[in-house]
Amino acid sequence: MPRFFMAGTNIMGGMAIMTGRDAEHVRVLRLRPGEDMIICDGKGTDYKCRLVKADREQVEAEVIEVVPCPAEPTVQVTVLCGLPKGDRTDYIIQKCVEAGASEIMFFQSDRCVAKPDKPEKKLERWQRIAEEAAKQSGRGIIPQVSWAGEYADALNVANQKELGLFMYETGEREALNTVLEANSDVKTAAIVTGPEGGFAPFEADLARIVGLHICSMGERILRCETAPVVAVSALMYATGNLS
Amino acid sequence: MPRFFMAGTNIMGGMAIMTGRDAEHVRVLRLRPGEDMIICDGKGTDYKCRLVKADREQVEAEVIEVVPCPAEPTVQVTVLCGLPKGDRTDYIIQKCVEAGASEIMFFQSDRCVAKPDKPEKKLERWQRIAEEAAKQSGRGIIPQVSWAGEYADALNVANQKELGLFMYETGEREALNTVLEANSDVKTAAIVTGPEGGFAPFEADLARIVGLHICSMGERILRCETAPVVAVSALMYATGNLS
Repeated sequence: MPRFFMAGTNIMGGMAIMTGRDAEHVRVLRLRPGEDMIICDGKGTDYKCRLVKADREQVEAEVIEVVPCPAEPTVQVTVLCGLPKGDRTDYIIQKCVEAGASEIMFFQSDRCVAKPDKPEKKLERWQRIAEEAAKQSGRGIIPQVSWAGEYADALNVANQKELGLFMYETGEREALNTVLEANSDVKTAAIVTGPEGGFAPFEADLARIVGLHICSMGERILRCETAPVVAVSALMYATGNLS
Repeated sequence: MPRFFMAGTNIMGGMAIMTGRDAEHVRVLRLRPGEDMIICDGKGTDYKCRLVKADREQVEAEVIEVVPCPAEPTVQVTVLCGLPKGDRTDYIIQKCVEAGASEIMFFQSDRCVAKPDKPEKKLERWQRIAEEAAKQSGRGIIPQVSWAGEYADALNVANQKELGLFMYETGEREALNTVLEANSDVKTAAIVTGPEGGFAPFEADLARIVGLHICSMGERILRCETAPVVAVSALMYATGNLS
């Protein structure tokens, strides 16, 4: 069934009124009155609608059913990544959104090779990648992409979640299985991963001090753009969101 | 510790003799006699060695310890993908090798958009991507990339594994959790995923008939290059290989 995010849609009195880009989409798909579609409010709710009228100015549809978007996981995952080089950011955003992350943030850390003066400038493009991935994968929200700032700010964000996972490739760590099995019913979680060069030991120490779980994901060394996707997949699996 | 695959290395009588490219690597890294390194035989065994001599012609090292490569998972996973377009193959190979797959095969199926006359021509490049990913992630083997041929051939390969998972986005399916929890001690597994357009219903029927598990990975629609990586991650997690 065709599916739309409702950027320009009003839902009032059991009717959905679409204008602008969204109305254009309906016309492009040549939907006819009587045909069904899903309008998603971008906040996790799906409106199943039946098309009543589609003309040049606007589209009107009758709301038949209102349900939580079934593609939204039961856990809100914030992915926090040390800013990588080049288009690795794009890859992280696209794949983490598909895998089920609710929010993606980049931060500056000690071993970041990429040091853009104004990462804020990239936010528009990053957000567009998230939006496209959300639409394509049938998400009920458009995950937000943002710039967390310095490492300490990122730790602070992670620390506000019920479960904070810090992926680290050496030293004393907890097994990811053990941590996730003990926390399979969390509603909010953060996954923190490093840039190309990983984290400096003092950064791992800081993460430990603020109370994040320092986790191992096995003996294979994952690239900085691979680790977040593997971690989100494992978390979705462990919380029953991959079935 | 520096780590080498042993393409040109002979191990005899407690000594490892490296020539050619591998010997060059040792020289480039400016390792000195007395320093330690790991030489991996590409079949899952690591030789911890101490450098004795490195000159223009060859490198000699004393074997100190022989251990199974700790990065190799306890399950051998064969990933079978409907041939996707463009460089999505490269992405699948790189990420699945990092995540722990032991073998990657592509096949032709009903909805494949990419229909190269001679996929065999690409094998050399694909194999090189696997080799680079294996080295970078510290694998103990270089996973083989190959062309499975027609869809029926791919099913045949999958069916020879202890556990065969067929990822499908619609219809009657088993939850991935349920299947993996009941099979967490398997030694060989296959993951079958479709090309851009997914599988045709008759292809899913065939998979069901030969006895593969038709699995759901949740309500989010994963791109053809994302699904294999998410599936390998879930399988590694469920079999205790992500800790």
